[in-house]
Amino acid sequence: MTETGKKLYLEDLTVGMEFRSSEYALDREKIVAFASEFDPQPFHLDDAAAENSSFNGLAASGWHTMSVTMRLLVESVPFGSGLIGAGAELSWPAPTRPDDVLHVWTEIIDIRPSRSKLDRGIVVIRSRTLNQHNELRQDVTAKILVFSREV
Amino acid sequence: MTETGKKLYLEDLTVGMEFRSSEYALDREKIVAFASEFDPQPFHLDDAAAENSSFNGLAASGWHTMSVTMRLLVESVPFGSGLIGAGAELSWPAPTRPDDVLHVWTEIIDIRPSRSKLDRGIVVIRSRTLNQHNELRQDVTAKILVFSREV
Repeated sequence: MTETGKKLYLEDLTVGMEFRSSEYALDREKIVAFASEFDPQPFHLDDAAAENSSFNGLAASGWHTMSVTMRLLVESVPFGSGLIGAGAELSWPAPTRPDDVLHVWTEIIDIRPSRSKLDRGIVVIRSRTLNQHNELRQDVTAKILVFSREV
Repeated sequence: MTETGKKLYLEDLTVGMEFRSSEYALDREKIVAFASEFDPQPFHLDDAAAENSSFNGLAASGWHTMSVTMRLLVESVPFGSGLIGAGAELSWPAPTRPDDVLHVWTEIIDIRPSRSKLDRGIVVIRSRTLNQHNELRQDVTAKILVFSREV
């Protein structure tokens, strides 16, 4: 964990550093609003339809879980150059539910300095999104472009 | 391409099948609205800040590009059991811009019947999100849980 407000640049980062986000409460209204705009499938929109689906009840779109995760990452991973993603790999071991309160644990798992540009590198982070019972809802590994402190 | 309205189940699918979505026009207002809720970083929110960033101008959140892609997939990939994702791998070769009109080309690249459950399998799809100039904005490979037709 880092001091509040301290921005981190490439030279400040080490493999194994961890960051814990604050919490974000989902609810039925938010799940349906996101799904209506971006993932309009019955099991994300309607309780009765969701009961009869393989989800056995209303479930958030996986992309909603990812988008909430991103919001939590922006406030919890204090890279001075921001969180600029080059790519990501995700899995959803279980669906996010309307009563879930999510938080995200992030760990730096690799740091790859650029060979051609000395002022930047790719930092690989793994972020686990958990609910209030510490049940895993999403596991994402992302490649983040991180810059050095300007001198 | 498939006939409009025809739903496809596991036994209908073959590697190499392709699907083309309709179009979705981004704009500055949508980019800022999504970023305000889910990815509040200066280069997604403010033109002047974005000009001075490594994006050289306002760019959509990668998760916004993915969410729009999902919306286009829901209407263009007519799997009878829906699009239930188990996981995905994405890259963003270039940022999505306010004047981009996106469409998505999807190809089935692998089909893996379940060994334990005869009524389902994992179908791997690759979806390329392109703008009106056929410039690639996102490349995503996703594992979709697909069911057989109920008999």
